[in-house]
Amino acid sequence: MPSCGWLLLPLFVAALTAQLDHYFVSLSKVFFQCAFLISGNTIGVVTYKQTERNCSVSPPYLPSTAVDTTLQLKELQEKMLSLNISAYIIPGTDAHLSEYIAPRDARMAFMTGFTGSAGTAVVTQTKAALWTDSRYWVQAERQMDCNWELEKDVSISSVAEWLISEVPSGNEIGFDPFLFSLKTHEDYRINLESSNLSLKSVPVNLVDQVWKDREPIPSNNLTRLPDRVIQRPWQKKVMQIRDQIRDNPYEPTALLLSALDETAWLFNLRGNDIPYNPFFYSYTLLTMDEIWLFLHTDRVTDELRVYLNASCNGSYCVQLKSYDTVRDHLKKYVAQPGVKVWIGTEYTNYALYEIITPEEKLMTSSYSPVLTTKAVKDDTEQRILRDAHVRDAVAVIQLLMWLEKAVPEGKETELTAAEYVNECRSKQNDSRGPSFETISASGPNAALAHYSPSEESSRSLTVDEMYLVDSGGQYLDGTTDITRTVHWGTPTAMQKEAFTRVLMGNIEISRTIFPSGTRGVNMEMLGRRALWEVGLNYGHGTGHGVGNYFGVHEWPVGFQSNNIPFRTGMFTSIEPGYYKENDFGIRIEDVAVIVPVHTKYGHNYLTFDTVSLVPYDRKLIDTLLLSSEQLHWLNKYYETIRSLVGPELDKQGLHEEKDWMLKHTEPFMMSGSSASVCFSSLTLIALAVALLHNII
Amino acid sequence: MPSCGWLLLPLFVAALTAQLDHYFVSLSKVFFQCAFLISGNTIGVVTYKQTERNCSVSPPYLPSTAVDTTLQLKELQEKMLSLNISAYIIPGTDAHLSEYIAPRDARMAFMTGFTGSAGTAVVTQTKAALWTDSRYWVQAERQMDCNWELEKDVSISSVAEWLISEVPSGNEIGFDPFLFSLKTHEDYRINLESSNLSLKSVPVNLVDQVWKDREPIPSNNLTRLPDRVIQRPWQKKVMQIRDQIRDNPYEPTALLLSALDETAWLFNLRGNDIPYNPFFYSYTLLTMDEIWLFLHTDRVTDELRVYLNASCNGSYCVQLKSYDTVRDHLKKYVAQPGVKVWIGTEYTNYALYEIITPEEKLMTSSYSPVLTTKAVKDDTEQRILRDAHVRDAVAVIQLLMWLEKAVPEGKETELTAAEYVNECRSKQNDSRGPSFETISASGPNAALAHYSPSEESSRSLTVDEMYLVDSGGQYLDGTTDITRTVHWGTPTAMQKEAFTRVLMGNIEISRTIFPSGTRGVNMEMLGRRALWEVGLNYGHGTGHGVGNYFGVHEWPVGFQSNNIPFRTGMFTSIEPGYYKENDFGIRIEDVAVIVPVHTKYGHNYLTFDTVSLVPYDRKLIDTLLLSSEQLHWLNKYYETIRSLVGPELDKQGLHEEKDWMLKHTEPFMMSGSSASVCFSSLTLIALAVALLHNII
Repeated sequence: MPSCGWLLLPLFVAALTAQLDHYFVSLSKVFFQCAFLISGNTIGVVTYKQTERNCSVSPPYLPSTAVDTTLQLKELQEKMLSLNISAYIIPGTDAHLSEYIAPRDARMAFMTGFTGSAGTAVVTQTKAALWTDSRYWVQAERQMDCNWELEKDVSISSVAEWLISEVPSGNEIGFDPFLFSLKTHEDYRINLESSNLSLKSVPVNLVDQVWKDREPIPSNNLTRLPDRVIQRPWQKKVMQIRDQIRDNPYEPTALLLSALDETAWLFNLRGNDIPYNPFFYSYTLLTMDEIWLFLHTDRVTDELRVYLNASCNGSYCVQLKSYDTVRDHLKKYVAQPGVKVWIGTEYTNYALYEIITPEEKLMTSSYSPVLTTKAVKDDTEQRILRDAHVRDAVAVIQLLMWLEKAVPEGKETELTAAEYVNECRSKQNDSRGPSFETISASGPNAALAHYSPSEESSRSLTVDEMYLVDSGGQYLDGTTDITRTVHWGTPTAMQKEAFTRVLMGNIEISRTIFPSGTRGVNMEMLGRRALWEVGLNYGHGTGHGVGNYFGVHEWPVGFQSNNIPFRTGMFTSIEPGYYKENDFGIRIEDVAVIVPVHTKYGHNYLTFDTVSLVPYDRKLIDTLLLSSEQLHWLNKYYETIRSLVGPELDKQGLHEEKDWMLKHTEPFMMSGSSASVCFSSLTLIALAVALLHNII
Repeated sequence: MPSCGWLLLPLFVAALTAQLDHYFVSLSKVFFQCAFLISGNTIGVVTYKQTERNCSVSPPYLPSTAVDTTLQLKELQEKMLSLNISAYIIPGTDAHLSEYIAPRDARMAFMTGFTGSAGTAVVTQTKAALWTDSRYWVQAERQMDCNWELEKDVSISSVAEWLISEVPSGNEIGFDPFLFSLKTHEDYRINLESSNLSLKSVPVNLVDQVWKDREPIPSNNLTRLPDRVIQRPWQKKVMQIRDQIRDNPYEPTALLLSALDETAWLFNLRGNDIPYNPFFYSYTLLTMDEIWLFLHTDRVTDELRVYLNASCNGSYCVQLKSYDTVRDHLKKYVAQPGVKVWIGTEYTNYALYEIITPEEKLMTSSYSPVLTTKAVKDDTEQRILRDAHVRDAVAVIQLLMWLEKAVPEGKETELTAAEYVNECRSKQNDSRGPSFETISASGPNAALAHYSPSEESSRSLTVDEMYLVDSGGQYLDGTTDITRTVHWGTPTAMQKEAFTRVLMGNIEISRTIFPSGTRGVNMEMLGRRALWEVGLNYGHGTGHGVGNYFGVHEWPVGFQSNNIPFRTGMFTSIEPGYYKENDFGIRIEDVAVIVPVHTKYGHNYLTFDTVSLVPYDRKLIDTLLLSSEQLHWLNKYYETIRSLVGPELDKQGLHEEKDWMLKHTEPFMMSGSSASVCFSSLTLIALAVALLHNII
């Protein structure tokens, strides 16, 4: 799936605001006409079934999807008053700055009614406002009541400007430091200081205090990974990380781990606190002779306590501490003389950062050594992650084969297709459910960023529309993420050209050879170049790391500007696309592992080896556009699919699927531009030979 | 020429340390053997003619090239003592953070004897040390006496570590704030603060106080550009910049210009204070109703005073202030209520920055609006810069033609070739001398970064070695910079392959189509990709902006990570290369302007239009490696050379040169990989036809 950072190109803004199906679009248009007509009307009776709120009529119009937030707002404002806070900022993340959050952390949604995945809410004694990006404007207008203003600029400077206009100079603005990254805090500070507004860190969350039916911490026990998917026991990982602490020239004495996958990786543990992500709430403080693991200790079984050596205090004994005591323990640690705590600034919250004082007790890098070590998979991790992709390919092949037969019958929808692929994956060995909500999108829906079908929006699948399916699985041995775009009827010339150029982008990245240490951001234009050539482009990133039964977006590997340089053993998605507003969407996404490659003159050069193993829709490929190198790559890739997925299909007794796979991986004739030139030459030969025959 | 930021790849380090010709290499080797043999010898008589100092023998051995710095060191240490400074930092730049400096600003060289273009010197009461990169280690060992340690890590953290080990905690380290950028200051501060060392800004330079025969400010008058090379009179530029000040949301009230080309650009003035660069010492403070120009006022003629409206105080009157009073005037301006000064942080020195307090009176961007406006050439600037390149091509063609004839006779050297091309340029209209010291390098010398021939190093040119010439001219209408690599005999297969792949890199960048606003750094891998494919690479940047009679490295345009996004009307060099240690060097450099391009589906797409107009050495091009697109580009480029340089050669009556140019721009057969495939088909046809004949 594309990473969260969709670039909101001007082209996209219009498309994304219309996150509706045709039905809603027409209704909405009627509504706007209506609003125009009644603008001078004090009665304000609205007879159409509007889907969005209208706060400019009296009484305001609220659709049935809007949430009444009056009560929680009032209670929050009372809490703020008692703390002498003029405004309170409510971000959409959790204490681990997670990309995906648990329902109990959806504080912004609880306060505003708005359930989109990105946004910031701010409350004063008289006003309340939500900032979200263009993908979510319509959704926000449907879900929020008239207590809330919608602000359409998502930058922190926009929030700060609003605060400056609403809050008298000299007053304090409260925030929960657990929900602020260092950068978020710094951005607010810089924007507010010239107006003499100060930020007040309130380490007890005020929303939680008024949220009566907030979900409790999940009670499920944590689980350890079985030995068969592990090369390094946790003790070995601790040793490796301690080596890095010891070798660091700034001489840190401890490492603080805040991101949820850091602790889970270090101890080979998994949980299920966040949908689609096998994480559990935790922090770790690792010193050279102690290990403090902060978590909900009642979720640790006796067996796990033994596994973690939880009953001793030695350098390889894990001391279990209550999750909520992390600040207190960190404070005590920092109070000791001669200590220095290493943190990764990208994932440490401000609540922990602010207590590491004075400055000489702090050492920072963008990412902790756990994240940079985890980024490079060990041999076992590489092997099992490849294995998981073979089984995952079976599920996607099953989906594509079934759709080919079922769609012409006219009964399938985006939703039934999503259910089908989820079902197929669940039957594969070691399946642990989908790795994110399946994006199953037909026609214009596929042009919407972050679309997932709902009962309301789900389109019927037909042979007249392109169809995009972006899905992935969690397996005990790996996380997968793959996108295929298909057409079951006759694609237009433009659809075929766009698809082929997206494919060319995918291939150009995949086959490129580069020196170890090259950054993804400096190569990702290869994914766009064939599109640029004809004035096309896409508005999202080109790829992200994936994990071994971990997050489907596993940073800091990928093609973004803040990602780390590529090394052997990293896995990343490669996913160029093209989206035509109100018409169709194309994305071709594969996961690839970075491998060494032999070159004629040099050493230490790398390339990509694609581990996703599902053929592309032949109907959409215009081979005349491909270079002979691209055709060669494609044929070699198809050979790999045959050699790896073929035996797995045999093993699972899926004969029809095997035939389908073989048919769809037939080698392409080398008919690129070179071959097409030669074709005419061959015609000439044929002519000559014919002539010869005639003469004779 | 390649920009200063050579990446010192491991591959290069060894090569670059040996910045010597064969003669010196052998001597040096003998010396190392010798030093080994006499290591236990207290007599230490060295009979070989060593070229580098040896401070470990007693008495130390100093070559004749070493400079005795005892006196100036002693005097500086006395000055430091009187200010209670424990260490003094001497950077290699000037008060305008210029890339090239005037001799009077070469303070590091005066103190140390070392004349390399990059380095930092630090002096304490007992020690003195120089930090420079691997390109210059040998040179430093030749030029410095034993008062100086040579430190081989150029990072500020390395300097800071040294300071921490040498200076007692709590003491002060002095620096001239005019010679520190904001970033340099911040880096030192961060590295020193944990060791309780503080920086002391000493705005009077201590080296200048002990430098008795320091060159005075040049006395030459400043000149204004003639109207024929100007589209915008200075008043219009002032208006444009004031519009940007007015429109800025942070509401600055003034703009401070510190880089020398900022003031020169704004007023269409030029000087000659820095070799090869037509700059003059200056600052400007521009408000909405005043213009303060700080310069050496005695260099402003009466005519220029009229041109600048220097006798009034209105909003379009330039008030001339003495260069040395900039800090005082800025202080007075900042003391007023409600003012806010906009600075570009990349080129403003710490001496000016530190007096803009409190913080709310400061507004920063990386580059001033003058630099970002200047980056996009207006129509006249584009036209005349193209014109300058046509005349410049004549000079380079004259050189290449002459070398083709003269080299086989065996009398020419790197130096005579450099003199020849400089001479050819000087004869072109509006010539104002070379834009940098010509790099004329044969065989292994061409593999050295920043090599320019000296009497000592200059190699004879022969048909057995490759030859690289990187040169440029200043013209009243533009600055040029071009590199060609040639071979007058029979190149090896490897030389031909490397050259062709460098050319492929140049072409791939030049022909690429990209959306307006794409950053150079995200495309520059296209210059390397064909090399990477076979494990080759180069250790420098891929291109830099060029000016209209300005700097040959005109930032912030180019392919570096801190360069601004590409827009129509920017000019940049494109200069991939390949360097084989101790063997040969290849670089192909052209200047190109960014132009709009029509695409099938999109708008606002750009490409490069190459304005350097000299053919590449055909002998070194393996057309079988080129794609048909690359061949097509090459043929079109050669057509352009013919159509633009042909008439100029005619006009100048250079008939032999015209013939040479025509011969070297013959179109290539479309014989890329496609054609080669077809060739065999054509052979088949021929066979068939032959067969036919025989049969008949």
